[in-house]
Amino acid sequence: MNPISADQLLAAQSWRYATKQFDESKIIPSELWSALEESLILSPSSYGLQPWQFFVITNPDLRAKLRPHSWNQSQVTDASHLVVFAIPEEVDVAYMEKYLARIAEVRGVTLDSLSFYRDMMMADVIAGPRQAWVREWAARQVYIALGNFMTSAALVGVDTCPLEGIDPREYDTILGLPDKGYNSIVACAAGYRSAEDKYSSFAKVRFEKSDLVRHL
Amino acid sequence: MNPISADQLLAAQSWRYATKQFDESKIIPSELWSALEESLILSPSSYGLQPWQFFVITNPDLRAKLRPHSWNQSQVTDASHLVVFAIPEEVDVAYMEKYLARIAEVRGVTLDSLSFYRDMMMADVIAGPRQAWVREWAARQVYIALGNFMTSAALVGVDTCPLEGIDPREYDTILGLPDKGYNSIVACAAGYRSAEDKYSSFAKVRFEKSDLVRHL
Repeated sequence: MNPISADQLLAAQSWRYATKQFDESKIIPSELWSALEESLILSPSSYGLQPWQFFVITNPDLRAKLRPHSWNQSQVTDASHLVVFAIPEEVDVAYMEKYLARIAEVRGVTLDSLSFYRDMMMADVIAGPRQAWVREWAARQVYIALGNFMTSAALVGVDTCPLEGIDPREYDTILGLPDKGYNSIVACAAGYRSAEDKYSSFAKVRFEKSDLVRHL
Repeated sequence: MNPISADQLLAAQSWRYATKQFDESKIIPSELWSALEESLILSPSSYGLQPWQFFVITNPDLRAKLRPHSWNQSQVTDASHLVVFAIPEEVDVAYMEKYLARIAEVRGVTLDSLSFYRDMMMADVIAGPRQAWVREWAARQVYIALGNFMTSAALVGVDTCPLEGIDPREYDTILGLPDKGYNSIVACAAGYRSAEDKYSSFAKVRFEKSDLVRHL
């Protein structure tokens, strides 16, 4: 591992802002976009469960249909790429079994050898108190992926705008997500800022460090 | 902005794993840690509201007290740094006013010039449907910061382990967070992996790309 400097990290994060106006003519090169999809896949999640699916919407008709259900924000149609972050309708025993089978496959181990891990996960996620709010818990995991995505994109010079102001039910209907077993949570546009986006030059607003970080 | 290559990004994310065993003798240099605090501060959040506080726990006594309320995970005491991610007890009008005042201060504009933005935020967060679940919404924002933190740390060569298996109420009591107006949500240990952590060599388990990313 060849780390980057702290200065380079902070420069990318300072450069990042919630892009209001994308340059419609600038498309993320396909190789770079593939890498960003890989970066999404590498997002951390609790137990490594990956309770998500990333829908990359490239069809302009779909994006035009989504826009009115996104406070009419232009990013939905104008950015190079639009990602809808979704969670599984059910995080149930079948989902856990699928995950355990995948661990066994990738690591070349038997399912039996995972029994301790399996019991621990099942006791927590399926039989434990987490089950009562398992969908919200999955939604929180999606926000890890969202955070990772925005930082990763900035580092490779890609602009993003997170879109919480979407109507998830309308998104589900337009994209047919329930038929696929998923529900949308949040979206994120990615591409390149327009030279005309005045927001790109605004000073970033953060509370004082002493208001945000405390040492105990 | 001087972007890094996609390969370098993915190398860092592949190197990252949820560290089980930290090397107790290795401390993150203070300058690098300061940069990671800055990176936390630069985390994106909805409206830029920053509904969070990051408690950096360095006191070994506190960390020893927290460990039993963290499934006794050794990372709580052994990692160089421990961050507890917390949300404000109230995301209310006073909080919004404080944020608006900060925007005016940083950007050198009048509060009056922010009235459109203010009305939009208030209508959504305070008077709108979001108020009913504003704390959970704040918790989701915290997960953006968590995702950003883990990716940022990996890029500068720092190991992390997210800790969801904590008892937030016990954490609150031990750290006195309610008196400070905050409630703990999740924690993350940061430091350097022990050479003995066998998990560092395990293959990373992800579902097939076709199971995680779909194009529509």
